[in-house]
Amino acid sequence: MLAETLAAIRAADPAAIAEARALQDRLTKPRGSLGALEDVAVRLAGAAGACPPPLPAPAALAIFAADHGVHAAGVTPWPQEVTVQMVANFLAGGAVANAFAAQAGVPVTVVDVGVAADLPDAPALVKHKIAYGTADLSRGPAMTVDQAVRALEAGITVARDLVAGGARCLITGDMGIANTTASAALISAFTGADPAEVTGRGTGIDDETHGRKISVVREALRVNGLPADTSSASEALRTLAAVGGFEHAAIAGFILGGAAARVPVLLDGVIAGAAALAAAALDPAALDHCVAGHRSAEPGHAAALDRLGLRPLVDLGLRLGEGTGALLAHPMVCAAVRVMHEVATFDSAGVTEKPV
Amino acid sequence: MLAETLAAIRAADPAAIAEARALQDRLTKPRGSLGALEDVAVRLAGAAGACPPPLPAPAALAIFAADHGVHAAGVTPWPQEVTVQMVANFLAGGAVANAFAAQAGVPVTVVDVGVAADLPDAPALVKHKIAYGTADLSRGPAMTVDQAVRALEAGITVARDLVAGGARCLITGDMGIANTTASAALISAFTGADPAEVTGRGTGIDDETHGRKISVVREALRVNGLPADTSSASEALRTLAAVGGFEHAAIAGFILGGAAARVPVLLDGVIAGAAALAAAALDPAALDHCVAGHRSAEPGHAAALDRLGLRPLVDLGLRLGEGTGALLAHPMVCAAVRVMHEVATFDSAGVTEKPV
Repeated sequence: MLAETLAAIRAADPAAIAEARALQDRLTKPRGSLGALEDVAVRLAGAAGACPPPLPAPAALAIFAADHGVHAAGVTPWPQEVTVQMVANFLAGGAVANAFAAQAGVPVTVVDVGVAADLPDAPALVKHKIAYGTADLSRGPAMTVDQAVRALEAGITVARDLVAGGARCLITGDMGIANTTASAALISAFTGADPAEVTGRGTGIDDETHGRKISVVREALRVNGLPADTSSASEALRTLAAVGGFEHAAIAGFILGGAAARVPVLLDGVIAGAAALAAAALDPAALDHCVAGHRSAEPGHAAALDRLGLRPLVDLGLRLGEGTGALLAHPMVCAAVRVMHEVATFDSAGVTEKPV
Repeated sequence: MLAETLAAIRAADPAAIAEARALQDRLTKPRGSLGALEDVAVRLAGAAGACPPPLPAPAALAIFAADHGVHAAGVTPWPQEVTVQMVANFLAGGAVANAFAAQAGVPVTVVDVGVAADLPDAPALVKHKIAYGTADLSRGPAMTVDQAVRALEAGITVARDLVAGGARCLITGDMGIANTTASAALISAFTGADPAEVTGRGTGIDDETHGRKISVVREALRVNGLPADTSSASEALRTLAAVGGFEHAAIAGFILGGAAARVPVLLDGVIAGAAALAAAALDPAALDHCVAGHRSAEPGHAAALDRLGLRPLVDLGLRLGEGTGALLAHPMVCAAVRVMHEVATFDSAGVTEKPV
């Protein structure tokens, strides 16, 4: 399924991009006056291979939840059971992601790809559990390559199912206590940045815990022999398995699945950024179908976005995850595309254009 | 009407602010993890005097349109008739503001406070024309103080009418060829910043026109004897009349009207920023009811926001006006407030809190 998905991904269409740029300049607004939103609209035209591109609505949020063996290394004060408690909170509609999703009119699907507990059935819960949490990445590989592939394929499956259900934009979300540690390790491995530069305070940790978290990330890279060359697909997969989480692998698959279906993927914060690095290592063309929803307060996220060449839309110091930053960005992405469908041209509206 | 409105404005309620801060810390998210959105939610609680504050929806956008005598000074390559042409475009639903408003589910009202042409009746057009454009601010006062008061009261009237019609958030919009010149003059007068620092390229002008625009702003301040002391209400009014536009005065009134009704006002770009400086000079407490929707690419806007102490939500290099930046921010403001209504507390959701 992974190979088939990778084979289906197409890079952006240069003709649609050129057409979209030309259309932007004919609309009744000063040229370039919509700033980064013009770039987003043009990007989506390239991804869809159509100008104007389809409206990225309705959207669907998938929150990939999993636990992390590295929790045992003392990288966060939050107990591991908060992952399963927050899954219950999502399913009951009580989390911030639910409130933001309600505001944006986006349904929420929760995907168990590796929570360290059995979960009762629920209508919005999809079960793709690979294991009861990863192994401790600071002592060896967090996942086997086989597990990583299964998590990737879980993400692809969720993307396919949501698109089959009518979604025209996929929004990434995550839940997993300790997952900023795995994110930092992935970002360090894929960008070559030093662990100290990309390891943040996650949900809020003191200096001592932060120092330990940096050491843990450094040790994870050492014990797993990373960073090696991450440019080949097999090495990318080995890196993802070594220091990622099940949710990172699943989100990478979700991105690939969206790209293969030519449905844009709106990325949330640092977990999605780390996953996108893995997806891009598997196929750089997948990135043409991604939009960065926001920039998290986590330092590793900025490093990931730089490497991915993505400019975030929202930059408000959020550091919550769950898809919250991407949910805030979704109406803006829709607004950017709507402009290409609904705004009059200087000619059609009889508005005098600025003399050249 | 102006005096009565000023008398009705209340500053933020410290008890509601404290209650909102405490509530934010009990919700199922790491403390502070919603960044600037927590501040927005707390700010609206203070403005409303209630925790949680009412949802700022439905919202209403008012686009205040007017022409400017300073257009004759050659500050922009766009012909003056573009103002009236764009008013027609708004009323036909063909402008970017319409597309963004449709995305946000916000109705659009266009207010003629001084367009230099007679406008045919239209359902979404409100007529409060003060004159057929202002006088040239670089040769003397743009408005008489009486005209400025009438424009302020037009803005108050529009705010009252929209609130009476059910609006629970007022969004500022503007249209007026050459109005970034008046904005720069107002911002320079109210902040003391040099005209060269706060005069931008508006909709896109070349170096020569930009140099002329700076000279025009400098001359406007000189010929009108500004900046003088802008701290008294009468001096603020004189400054607004001397170098403002009808839309600036009307937006200042719109802000005061919203504040008096305790309905939050979502500010758009540099024109709204300049108007807010005037409103704040008339009553600083009016600012407690304002949220900065975005930061425009115009340099004067950053100076205005700094002086106002407002942090913008959207920062994407927009420089279009019309209310576009504020419209993009509206769903985020709603999301911020929704959190206080809908998100579970650690206690209620049975989620373990981080050990202190």
